[in-house]
Amino acid sequence: MKQDCKTPGWIFNWGSAPNKIPPWAHTFKRFLILPSTEAKTSEVRGADPHDRLSQRLFDSRALSLNLAKPLSDEDQVVQAMDDASPTKWHLAHTTWFYEAFVLRDHLPGYDVFSERFEYCFNSYYEAKGNRHPRASRGLLTRPSAEEVRQYRAYVDAALMRLMAHEAARSGRVAALVELGINHEQQHQELLLTDVLSLFALQPLRPAYQQQPLRSVATAGPETTPFITYEGGIHSVGHDGNGFSYDNEGPRHDVLIHPFRLAERCVTNRDYLAFIESGAYRDPLVWLADGWTTVRERGWTAPGYWERVDGGWHQMTLNGLLPIELDAPVSHVSYFEADAFARFAGKRLPTEFEWEHASAGV
Amino acid sequence: MKQDCKTPGWIFNWGSAPNKIPPWAHTFKRFLILPSTEAKTSEVRGADPHDRLSQRLFDSRALSLNLAKPLSDEDQVVQAMDDASPTKWHLAHTTWFYEAFVLRDHLPGYDVFSERFEYCFNSYYEAKGNRHPRASRGLLTRPSAEEVRQYRAYVDAALMRLMAHEAARSGRVAALVELGINHEQQHQELLLTDVLSLFALQPLRPAYQQQPLRSVATAGPETTPFITYEGGIHSVGHDGNGFSYDNEGPRHDVLIHPFRLAERCVTNRDYLAFIESGAYRDPLVWLADGWTTVRERGWTAPGYWERVDGGWHQMTLNGLLPIELDAPVSHVSYFEADAFARFAGKRLPTEFEWEHASAGV
Amino acid sequence: MKQDCKTPGWIFNWGSAPNKIPPWAHTFKRFLILPSTEAKTSEVRGADPHDRLSQRLFDSRALSLNLAKPLSDEDQVVQAMDDASPTKWHLAHTTWFYEAFVLRDHLPGYDVFSERFEYCFNSYYEAKGNRHPRASRGLLTRPSAEEVRQYRAYVDAALMRLMAHEAARSGRVAALVELGINHEQQHQELLLTDVLSLFALQPLRPAYQQQPLRSVATAGPETTPFITYEGGIHSVGHDGNGFSYDNEGPRHDVLIHPFRLAERCVTNRDYLAFIESGAYRDPLVWLADGWTTVRERGWTAPGYWERVDGGWHQMTLNGLLPIELDAPVSHVSYFEADAFARFAGKRLPTEFEWEHASAGV
Amino acid sequence: MKQDCKTPGWIFNWGSAPNKIPPWAHTFKRFLILPSTEAKTSEVRGADPHDRLSQRLFDSRALSLNLAKPLSDEDQVVQAMDDASPTKWHLAHTTWFYEAFVLRDHLPGYDVFSERFEYCFNSYYEAKGNRHPRASRGLLTRPSAEEVRQYRAYVDAALMRLMAHEAARSGRVAALVELGINHEQQHQELLLTDVLSLFALQPLRPAYQQQPLRSVATAGPETTPFITYEGGIHSVGHDGNGFSYDNEGPRHDVLIHPFRLAERCVTNRDYLAFIESGAYRDPLVWLADGWTTVRERGWTAPGYWERVDGGWHQMTLNGLLPIELDAPVSHVSYFEADAFARFAGKRLPTEFEWEHASAGV
Repeated sequence: MKQDCKTPGWIFNWGSAPNKIPPWAHTFKRFLILPSTEAKTSEVRGADPHDRLSQRLFDSRALSLNLAKPLSDEDQVVQAMDDASPTKWHLAHTTWFYEAFVLRDHLPGYDVFSERFEYCFNSYYEAKGNRHPRASRGLLTRPSAEEVRQYRAYVDAALMRLMAHEAARSGRVAALVELGINHEQQHQELLLTDVLSLFALQPLRPAYQQQPLRSVATAGPETTPFITYEGGIHSVGHDGNGFSYDNEGPRHDVLIHPFRLAERCVTNRDYLAFIESGAYRDPLVWLADGWTTVRERGWTAPGYWERVDGGWHQMTLNGLLPIELDAPVSHVSYFEADAFARFAGKRLPTEFEWEHASAGV
Repeated sequence: MKQDCKTPGWIFNWGSAPNKIPPWAHTFKRFLILPSTEAKTSEVRGADPHDRLSQRLFDSRALSLNLAKPLSDEDQVVQAMDDASPTKWHLAHTTWFYEAFVLRDHLPGYDVFSERFEYCFNSYYEAKGNRHPRASRGLLTRPSAEEVRQYRAYVDAALMRLMAHEAARSGRVAALVELGINHEQQHQELLLTDVLSLFALQPLRPAYQQQPLRSVATAGPETTPFITYEGGIHSVGHDGNGFSYDNEGPRHDVLIHPFRLAERCVTNRDYLAFIESGAYRDPLVWLADGWTTVRERGWTAPGYWERVDGGWHQMTLNGLLPIELDAPVSHVSYFEADAFARFAGKRLPTEFEWEHASAGV
Repeated sequence: MKQDCKTPGWIFNWGSAPNKIPPWAHTFKRFLILPSTEAKTSEVRGADPHDRLSQRLFDSRALSLNLAKPLSDEDQVVQAMDDASPTKWHLAHTTWFYEAFVLRDHLPGYDVFSERFEYCFNSYYEAKGNRHPRASRGLLTRPSAEEVRQYRAYVDAALMRLMAHEAARSGRVAALVELGINHEQQHQELLLTDVLSLFALQPLRPAYQQQPLRSVATAGPETTPFITYEGGIHSVGHDGNGFSYDNEGPRHDVLIHPFRLAERCVTNRDYLAFIESGAYRDPLVWLADGWTTVRERGWTAPGYWERVDGGWHQMTLNGLLPIELDAPVSHVSYFEADAFARFAGKRLPTEFEWEHASAGV
Repeated sequence: MKQDCKTPGWIFNWGSAPNKIPPWAHTFKRFLILPSTEAKTSEVRGADPHDRLSQRLFDSRALSLNLAKPLSDEDQVVQAMDDASPTKWHLAHTTWFYEAFVLRDHLPGYDVFSERFEYCFNSYYEAKGNRHPRASRGLLTRPSAEEVRQYRAYVDAALMRLMAHEAARSGRVAALVELGINHEQQHQELLLTDVLSLFALQPLRPAYQQQPLRSVATAGPETTPFITYEGGIHSVGHDGNGFSYDNEGPRHDVLIHPFRLAERCVTNRDYLAFIESGAYRDPLVWLADGWTTVRERGWTAPGYWERVDGGWHQMTLNGLLPIELDAPVSHVSYFEADAFARFAGKRLPTEFEWEHASAGV
């Protein structure tokens, strides 16, 4: 069984409660399937936890720079919308994190690169002082991308000194570095998300990379096999081993009712049938808030879909390409996923059903 | 144990998951405690279900008119904001409901009062044709309040003919009338909510009624007794007897962890301590979206609280009055309730905990 | 020669400067031709200036009430848009004017009707203290229309006492009363303008009155005779006799170049040819700001024009009527008048040309 | 007498009409005094008009690149607000102008650099096809600044071939090149204006250049000498020699009344007295629209003025500097200039008075 995609499957259930609208449905965000960033980490040699942490740290630091490589300095300065951030900002903010939370406190004699960077590249950490307004991040032409690269080099050198230091073997430093790695990985996802939103607005529709999407589906919805789950009392949430974010715990028991989950993702082909059924013009398919959103935003298809010469294309990190029918549908909002499931005579899985099913893979 | 208020209690729990933000938290609405509309229904004589239904129907029809009595025709035409509706609109819309869904189909020979009223007073029923934009309801000076009263009288007379008719004893008609009664009761709540929002904008701060709020609290938070609930697998949702809305079912089992619930509501006195602690200026007390909301809306206190000569007052249906310290706090948003609970070292109950606790009362 | 309409004529000129865009063009207002309010004043008997002033005063006070007569109290409370005011507000504000500027200072022993009315019905007179926000005038359901009528009666009675008083024969009081009359006449125009804007938003499209528009045109544009004006140095501005507003003076000389002015107004028929030429879709016909406005506002015809069953209708104070082809076109903005003139191979007259031509009538 | 600045002088007049609000007052723009771009053109040798035109053409082409030199590619891609354009856009748009209006039609065999640039860098020329939305110019990271420089080099080479061609000696080509030069000069002004608006938003407040502002005032307002102008009938507008924009003609006579004009510009010192008088909090000093603007925009001083450690500074192309008291005040809107003049007991000159006075210098 393959569930390596983030798009909604669909499920059938007996007797359980209808799904609630999740709070983030109201943020109207449409989600991204990231290209698989293969070989994110080099092979980790040896068994020493500190060495492994150190290697993962510098691998993640290097990956951010690699992700920015296809971009010009100009590409890195602009944000496509208030909710997106410039690449340069991601590169600087993840670096500022180490300076503010790790190096200042744990590397003796550390001098900050520049006090003014704190104002520029702090984000949601209000407790850490004032910050540049989010919607104006794309106006920051100074500091330059080159200065930000120097900032990264300066901080990376300090991190090397720290990791070579005996004190870095303390649990406190290790926990902060682990958090820094995970924080930077989040921003790597956002970086690609935000590049796509920026490139989709360029009249020339440039490609960020040349890396084909993979198809996953092998059968249409009529014949899709479903996997049955028995239900019962199951534990969900982080189990205490390894890193987790604070909203992933505490682990606790939930009652899950018997349900079935499709064996494969919903594909563009499946979703096209939904579009062609006239769903985007039919209020009865949608939740009330969903229908309001569809009309207010003028949605007629998933995010980044465009009509080109009568056929559907999708702007991707590989540029503007014809829809690949057997690829998982992506850039659909919660409301669209919910409406599609209803159209298909199914419903979306709950968070707990999904976590339970994923845990068994 | 008394839990007859809609304000948040607070609870303590062991080991269970933190609350999720409910979707409606993002709508930023602040909720109202309605004055108890005493004697909503006259005594129902006899045991015949049809007679009881009929009596409840005409009682609810009469109550709407009674609620509008303290208002001038001018008061009834205006809406205070896009999300509120004019009283006249509530009166007409609940009437239109019977015409559109009951009388047309089930009273032989029924002539609609006016075809054009459908456009004016249809609301969310998109399937029923076009409708007047919600935000422009307050511009409808025609039809007049007097015409709307005639409309009500015309439809009530038809409903009397219907209820006297043998066909009205069918389950189908009874179900529709039951829905109409509940629909009108919802709008009675909204009518009062919307009158308050309108009167709060009048420079003269008029009183809608003279009916004192009742205090409920008897002890400060330090000494509030808590009731312990054992947890276990419990059923929630409508149990199939009597009327329910479609989002109240199906009934299903949920796993509830042991928790404790305060014996009384949070009072204005409790909440004042929260305000005076500086909570409205401290980002750390709030959920991130809550803090954004507090700043964007400039919140410094619950809805309808105003400073008058250095002391807190609250605009109520009884006019602008000094805060009654022992009354339950009201007009707080989800974000404020959540922040208050955190301030008190507690958390809000989940929907299921609340339903379970309420069921035992 | 007839120039009793406010719609643009068109003119041809030799050698003079092109028109400048007037500042009010950017306010995007569309203007109204008022129905002739015939017999605005009763016959003024006698030659005593004080008696004539007094008669004009009470005639103008009576006219405002007469203009409100076709309206229900509900009609009088609402404003159709931020820039419009409710009828009730016009009635109260013109009354407040006499209280604030005439009676308080000049009628010994005068008691104001209510101190709180000052806050409600003051408008642009910031020097007179705080005022209710303009965009919220339509939310003022209290004071009621009936209270406003009592307010008018109270103030009118005081004005009668004042005018009977010897002191009212002073030049100071006479000047203030003259200003009050003119002020109220302005609001009478606005009252009708604002009623039209409100009734045009009612789904039922009610008629305020039954009074036919008069046609004025007798010939199409090809054969319209033009009147020639010689030009020269002419005086413009108020000449010092009788009342004037402060922006109507001082009188001064201007140089006017020879020009020609059409003998009749532009008609709906003329303007329809402009519409049917595709002008509303052609950027080249418009000033740059005009074209921006046309697109932003989605203009396709003059204000209050609507398509009904394939033909043009216009919402008027007489209700929704088919376009009368030979009536002067009205509710056109400056940008539309300018574009029409260009379309006709002409230009608009300057303010000074118009004043000069009007003076000779 | 020196009148080489664009800031308002003030004048006193006898008997003439008050100024009208100019239409652009409502656009709320605040204007810039450009640093004197000295030696804009190299010395023009020889008397051949074609050679002089050619030299001015390539001088103006070179100047644009020089103005961009202090800027990084990142600086050149962003726009500070919808009304501003990125430097890169100015550089490309002025180049596109030559391609679209000169080279295509007049250089035999000319191949356009890229058809897609037309969409990107066309501006208000709607007749020339679709164009990229103005407010999204700052999102154009592609084409890159380097490609735009190549575009300029490509077009400049073609312009050199054109100017060497016999056909370029035709009046038609000369007129278009003259227009192109003036068009580019306009954009050079805008480029600096827009850089200032961008740099003023950078937390680091960078300096674009190091070139001191010059002071001009030598005396306070009390002792400022005034120059008297006699008035009479004078000609205004372009006199037919050399280049002019279409809104600078035709030349025509106007009647000017006697007036006096101050011998020097209003200085920051003068304006500071206006600020310190409380003018920005006093509705009576302002035109009604001006006061509305002051409140809506929260104005308390001219554009780019900031309080730093209790003293006024101004963001300039030289960075953030203390106010130079004897420099001409700049970045004041029409409303501020008008209010200042009223505060000083004067009024602004009319356009025609100013043109007449300037002509005599």
